[in-house]
Amino acid sequence: MKGADRLRDPRFEAAVEGLLDSYVSVGGINHIEGHNLPSLGQVVEVLHLLEAVLFPGYYEAARLGARNARYVIGEHCARLYECLAAEVAKSLEHTARCETAGDFVSGREANEQAERIVFELLETLPSIRATLYEDAQAALEGDPAARSIVEVLLAYPSIRAIGIHRVANFLHRRKVPLIPRMMSEHVHGQTGIDIHPGATIGPGLFIDHGTGVVIGETAVLGRWCKLYQGVTLGALSVSKHEETTWDPPKRHPTLEDRVTVYAGATILGGRTLIGEGSIVGGNVWLTRSIPPGTKVQIEPPFLLYRGASAISPVREPMDYQI
Amino acid sequence: MKGADRLRDPRFEAAVEGLLDSYVSVGGINHIEGHNLPSLGQVVEVLHLLEAVLFPGYYEAARLGARNARYVIGEHCARLYECLAAEVAKSLEHTARCETAGDFVSGREANEQAERIVFELLETLPSIRATLYEDAQAALEGDPAARSIVEVLLAYPSIRAIGIHRVANFLHRRKVPLIPRMMSEHVHGQTGIDIHPGATIGPGLFIDHGTGVVIGETAVLGRWCKLYQGVTLGALSVSKHEETTWDPPKRHPTLEDRVTVYAGATILGGRTLIGEGSIVGGNVWLTRSIPPGTKVQIEPPFLLYRGASAISPVREPMDYQI
Amino acid sequence: MKGADRLRDPRFEAAVEGLLDSYVSVGGINHIEGHNLPSLGQVVEVLHLLEAVLFPGYYEAARLGARNARYVIGEHCARLYECLAAEVAKSLEHTARCETAGDFVSGREANEQAERIVFELLETLPSIRATLYEDAQAALEGDPAARSIVEVLLAYPSIRAIGIHRVANFLHRRKVPLIPRMMSEHVHGQTGIDIHPGATIGPGLFIDHGTGVVIGETAVLGRWCKLYQGVTLGALSVSKHEETTWDPPKRHPTLEDRVTVYAGATILGGRTLIGEGSIVGGNVWLTRSIPPGTKVQIEPPFLLYRGASAISPVREPMDYQI
Repeated sequence: MKGADRLRDPRFEAAVEGLLDSYVSVGGINHIEGHNLPSLGQVVEVLHLLEAVLFPGYYEAARLGARNARYVIGEHCARLYECLAAEVAKSLEHTARCETAGDFVSGREANEQAERIVFELLETLPSIRATLYEDAQAALEGDPAARSIVEVLLAYPSIRAIGIHRVANFLHRRKVPLIPRMMSEHVHGQTGIDIHPGATIGPGLFIDHGTGVVIGETAVLGRWCKLYQGVTLGALSVSKHEETTWDPPKRHPTLEDRVTVYAGATILGGRTLIGEGSIVGGNVWLTRSIPPGTKVQIEPPFLLYRGASAISPVREPMDYQI
Repeated sequence: MKGADRLRDPRFEAAVEGLLDSYVSVGGINHIEGHNLPSLGQVVEVLHLLEAVLFPGYYEAARLGARNARYVIGEHCARLYECLAAEVAKSLEHTARCETAGDFVSGREANEQAERIVFELLETLPSIRATLYEDAQAALEGDPAARSIVEVLLAYPSIRAIGIHRVANFLHRRKVPLIPRMMSEHVHGQTGIDIHPGATIGPGLFIDHGTGVVIGETAVLGRWCKLYQGVTLGALSVSKHEETTWDPPKRHPTLEDRVTVYAGATILGGRTLIGEGSIVGGNVWLTRSIPPGTKVQIEPPFLLYRGASAISPVREPMDYQI
Repeated sequence: MKGADRLRDPRFEAAVEGLLDSYVSVGGINHIEGHNLPSLGQVVEVLHLLEAVLFPGYYEAARLGARNARYVIGEHCARLYECLAAEVAKSLEHTARCETAGDFVSGREANEQAERIVFELLETLPSIRATLYEDAQAALEGDPAARSIVEVLLAYPSIRAIGIHRVANFLHRRKVPLIPRMMSEHVHGQTGIDIHPGATIGPGLFIDHGTGVVIGETAVLGRWCKLYQGVTLGALSVSKHEETTWDPPKRHPTLEDRVTVYAGATILGGRTLIGEGSIVGGNVWLTRSIPPGTKVQIEPPFLLYRGASAISPVREPMDYQI
């Protein structure tokens, strides 16, 4: 018996070998000998840096002023650039190699393409900030309980979900694979707000409370829309007819400017157009278009009341009108 | 060319300068040269310390006993005091300076006021614990799947959300700005339960599953109420007529003692009073008061069944009764 | 005055003593002088290790290949074994001592039992992986926006929630207390998907978006079922008649193979059986069984439309059919 054999637990080793076998026999959900994948940890770090430069002074310990702002922000941008470009390059190279649809992209090409895209993102941040300013104003105006823009930035999930969405959407439009969805899913986990990076959203969106909101890949929202918790902007049919592409058929609805959708409402279908200024009531299930200025609500359901002493229930309509 | 000029990337610098420009041209969502804001990281640290002293022995590695309990808990209280008082002081000072409604508060006044409030909080923790004991009992009694108080404390979101709410509510009633909402929003992100710090909640509340629950700022809940996932206690009208104040008009409903509200129900309006012991069925949308002991449910919707071989759908009422 | 008395703040000490008093007078929600409880931090570490060996190469920085896979995975398994066995032992010992139902288990017995169970878990991981492969395929086929298995693993909450559930369910079936629910509640907090460890779930489950999904303790799902956000598979009656056991009466529904349940639907009751291949429409509230191949939807509610210029609302049925 060799010395090294004394450091063995045969049953344990057999369990490990069984697991290693399954990596070969059941592929797909393991990634061994493959190219590097983008790292969720690095993507989360990128999100922190993005929040630090989009909303400077809000989420960091250091106070920003005339003497340090340029250096702190410049250093954040440099780290953001390096970190995000590396992840984008991995994702471009991986996808090109692994998917039939992709053209071959060398490591060098992937790096160059990634750096070009991230540079453009940095240069677009000021205009993203101008849009986010409207989003923050919309939250302040939209919630009677909101006391200040500071409170909106420190204690509302909406501005955070939308801020990350605007960056994820920029990357998605430049056909960066994986990273935009990793960003949106991370924010979904933190806020309960699930916005696909493909969705097109005008400035001034406010999502109150937010838990359970779903906004699909081809949804289009105009300016200053307002959504409440549990709203779905979804697809009517979810059949997967053909190869997924960067230019999918429109499956999700369009909301024109200043549309309000109350809690729990569901709007489905790529041809469904909600006209400007319309109000969609709570729990409405809408699959057809409505003209501008329309209010739509469910016919109030009858409620059955049974009192402590009543024999049979009393049936009364709800007196509800939006 | 100076030496330092070799360490330049002009396009990158232009991007950074563009971002810095936007901090001046698009104000509000940046906080530069301003007073310190409360830090979310510090608030989260405070929440950990609070959980450690409210539920000692549950969330920490160290075993607590006669020899160390006094010192461990005392040290936690000291850190809690210091950390929370600093954040409360920042929030008082910031708000006083920035909001038109605020009186001027000097840094020293803010510190004194913050220390006074946090001292009172420490002295109130025993009575908050007595209330939380009822909340934990309510969870144990309310969920057939719950096996012990230990399980309730280790694996239920309800007790966590309510525990933090009771502290946030204490601070809110003492008019501490920002911090209570930062606390409630952090817990909302972790549990899907969104309770505004202003809500008044009696002992023995149990929220089962919890995801999607929204309890508004002026809601009032009696003793031993029970809510399920997706319940909204909300406002009928969300117009923002006037300045937000610490004493807002009542916009959200009142639940008397022992009211049960099943999943997905929505109760709206500041004058809506749900009488003692009432049961509100799933998906009910209620905007009027009901007397004590009432059961209210939606008139069961007709369901359309189409079998594998059927030509036309069969229409049958649901046979549902709470 | 002794020296040590100068280091005193009597009011602060009184507050600490008040808190310590409350640990004695209000028991239950503190755990002092008790046996060690399982630690949430350790359980979260176990979940990371599980994800690293179930989906190798996806969530870690190190690239896995022929030279390191055996050592990296072996080391992960060893840490997983040690860490999980310790927590399981604590939970067995604690529960046996504290609950009337439990038999007495010595520390040594608890350790042996824990090691036996965790060894079995390690040996079961390959078959759990084979099931998870079907779950990942189901997500890829089920979501038109999904581009690859890699995207499913990096950016979908479903596979994560189900992966952890399959392990939690293994431990639950072996009657490990506390740990399975700590696992499921941690994932619930991160994904909004609340699956009780007791639920029996066939391969190929896909949960799209997921926020607000609740699957109860005695629910049974066949192969290749599909659920959308906000679906509840719950209990009709929630009365707690008797002692909670490891073999509770069936309170939650059964879904046969290939059942689809759209967003917001609620299916209740232990005798409710949804036949193979059935489709349950959005917002349906179902408390009775339906035969295989049935489509069930709510009778589309009438919607009330009021145009910008209309005097009275127009009442129209929804033209919706699943």
